[in-house]
Amino acid sequence: MPETADSMSAHAAALAARLRAESPLVVNITNYVAMNFAANVLLAAGASPVMAHAPEEMDEMLAFAGALTINFGTLDVPWVKAMTHAGIAAQRASKPVVFDPVGVGATTFRTGTAKGFLDSFPVAVVRANSSEIRALDAFPEAPAATRGVDATDPVDAALPAAAALARKYRTVVAVSGAVDAVTDGATLVRIQGGSPLMPRITATGCALTALTGACCALAPSDPLLAAATAMVIFKAAAEDAAQTARGPGSMAVAFLDALHALYPSSLAYPPRIAMEPLP
Amino acid sequence: MPETADSMSAHAAALAARLRAESPLVVNITNYVAMNFAANVLLAAGASPVMAHAPEEMDEMLAFAGALTINFGTLDVPWVKAMTHAGIAAQRASKPVVFDPVGVGATTFRTGTAKGFLDSFPVAVVRANSSEIRALDAFPEAPAATRGVDATDPVDAALPAAAALARKYRTVVAVSGAVDAVTDGATLVRIQGGSPLMPRITATGCALTALTGACCALAPSDPLLAAATAMVIFKAAAEDAAQTARGPGSMAVAFLDALHALYPSSLAYPPRIAMEPLP
Amino acid sequence: MPETADSMSAHAAALAARLRAESPLVVNITNYVAMNFAANVLLAAGASPVMAHAPEEMDEMLAFAGALTINFGTLDVPWVKAMTHAGIAAQRASKPVVFDPVGVGATTFRTGTAKGFLDSFPVAVVRANSSEIRALDAFPEAPAATRGVDATDPVDAALPAAAALARKYRTVVAVSGAVDAVTDGATLVRIQGGSPLMPRITATGCALTALTGACCALAPSDPLLAAATAMVIFKAAAEDAAQTARGPGSMAVAFLDALHALYPSSLAYPPRIAMEPLP
Repeated sequence: MPETADSMSAHAAALAARLRAESPLVVNITNYVAMNFAANVLLAAGASPVMAHAPEEMDEMLAFAGALTINFGTLDVPWVKAMTHAGIAAQRASKPVVFDPVGVGATTFRTGTAKGFLDSFPVAVVRANSSEIRALDAFPEAPAATRGVDATDPVDAALPAAAALARKYRTVVAVSGAVDAVTDGATLVRIQGGSPLMPRITATGCALTALTGACCALAPSDPLLAAATAMVIFKAAAEDAAQTARGPGSMAVAFLDALHALYPSSLAYPPRIAMEPLP
Repeated sequence: MPETADSMSAHAAALAARLRAESPLVVNITNYVAMNFAANVLLAAGASPVMAHAPEEMDEMLAFAGALTINFGTLDVPWVKAMTHAGIAAQRASKPVVFDPVGVGATTFRTGTAKGFLDSFPVAVVRANSSEIRALDAFPEAPAATRGVDATDPVDAALPAAAALARKYRTVVAVSGAVDAVTDGATLVRIQGGSPLMPRITATGCALTALTGACCALAPSDPLLAAATAMVIFKAAAEDAAQTARGPGSMAVAFLDALHALYPSSLAYPPRIAMEPLP
Repeated sequence: MPETADSMSAHAAALAARLRAESPLVVNITNYVAMNFAANVLLAAGASPVMAHAPEEMDEMLAFAGALTINFGTLDVPWVKAMTHAGIAAQRASKPVVFDPVGVGATTFRTGTAKGFLDSFPVAVVRANSSEIRALDAFPEAPAATRGVDATDPVDAALPAAAALARKYRTVVAVSGAVDAVTDGATLVRIQGGSPLMPRITATGCALTALTGACCALAPSDPLLAAATAMVIFKAAAEDAAQTARGPGSMAVAFLDALHALYPSSLAYPPRIAMEPLP
């Protein structure tokens, strides 16, 4: 893990360049809303998406894939079974798993399912918004109010929960917001930049989860760097896209164009990353 | 219910403003084609979308949601069960339901399922095209010809069926077309405007259904106003979008931008609403 | 079947004109990633899409539809059953089937399922990339390396497999690539043109499969012409779109606009089609 913000920025730029050069294959089990946009985001960033969920083929898929992402946004019982199977198969194949607990805290079904995943297989990165992270940490005692899939809490308010989850599950927690936060329980990385139009487009968080998977495929031993890299790429591309966007529709289009056109070396400037040790 | 067209226009503008201010949460069980676009339409209009269908969480979802929309476009037996469960849960939670019977009349499965819904739980608004409304009213005797999900009949030809359905099921029927029509069986509201490019984009009707749900969440006691408001918003945003669109691809993008930029006060002019009592 | 490249071009232009005039209805069972884009491509080209998969309604659907397309990209056991049912129903209704074996060769489940389809019902056109065609032909002995759904082999390397499959299953095999190839085992048609941005957009191949279905609905007795026509339309629209696209996001949008604006007569020039007999 890079030990300074400058070093982290440089490593993120290098990882972004490798996305294009190595085109890592990522298997995604994601929700119906995000299927198309997440695949297009992976392609635009240089990665190679597979959307698949059947237990009958998951072990074979994960043999040649670099990572698995699980996003349970439109979950039901058969898909939860498929996701559980896939998570365990990823563990067997020693492939990193990125988990996006969309709407966790909104219902007992979501919160119980999320906890079940975390108890059943290792997760390299949990990628969520602040409300979801707080709900996941508080369960089952006093879940923070979650209002659908929108973040209602600022990222800072979720930092204690993020650190606690990271330590408890030996994972990295990536919290999306106006300023993103990533932590492994010992170090806190913040990523600034981006555009306020991004939360007005559905499935941007889900697509960030998919890209986090691609970065984990390239840096399986450093999920903190991988999660921070995906977030830096998103912030930088959103800034570029916002220069021409006239609303959320054109923003989504321009974001894909910007991802495709992104120079990895441009990720280091302006500086978007800050690092600090956690107490 | 507003009693004149001018009053209806003013109330629609006020309701559109409340979409932004109150951001009502709408649970949508919709088809795979519409999932992404409907969510983006709700976000662009200021509402807060949740796409969820699992019976395991529907009661909890509907406790804090403002409305439920059911669109059975890509139906199968498990989803029909989930939709039925959700409709009954919405009744228990006293939340309005908007129902979009995509392709009803095309197959016995669709028509029977649609009738089953209407017999099983209260529906605040049925939102469909003219062919679908005629098929729904005629069942099981002599369904009007339905050709997939495209309207082949003009809206006027469906007015008797719309009024009959509205009275029979104590619901509001909203018929989309070149000129939209909404009726509760006693009053007919017509909404003009829009763009002929809209029917060339898939899932625009489905997205209108979702927005009707958002309006019902804010005006649960006046589904006629809610349905008319959603239609006025769509017509106005389509007009704005058509000024720059070069085809259906750029129209869909510009439509989301226009929804996001729409001034609620602009909904009242040019006048788009006409009202008349039904015999 | 037209016997020269010029004649094939002229017939393709005529078939493209009929898409607008007759608006054939195509039933598509496709993957979650492609649902929206494939429907929008069919609409933009003038066809009439239905997305439906339930066995409970498939026979009725196929009674009035012109063709069925099956794309198993996000397959699982229930959907494979629905696809098998639909394929057999299409045979009963004498409607052409276009099959897109996304990712075949990547897993035993996909390859076994694809073979099962080909053994269970007649397929008018198999539309795939070169890796998939080679894997399908080699099964079960030595599948060519397939890396997710991206083509890693050039089209030429897949021609022997394409011809062998076409003869074995009495079908037409359409191989997408920088230069597309279509064969019935006796004649080889190549289609050049297009844009390198197309493979950077997800589900373009799936959408081409859907359009091939629309062309088969109009020319059920000439699947070679139908497949070549869909490919020519795609190449031409991609060329038009590439003139304004700034990346994959705006390319997808411009592609739909270009499809909508395409003059069928423009398909014949510049010449994109070459024909030769196979040995």
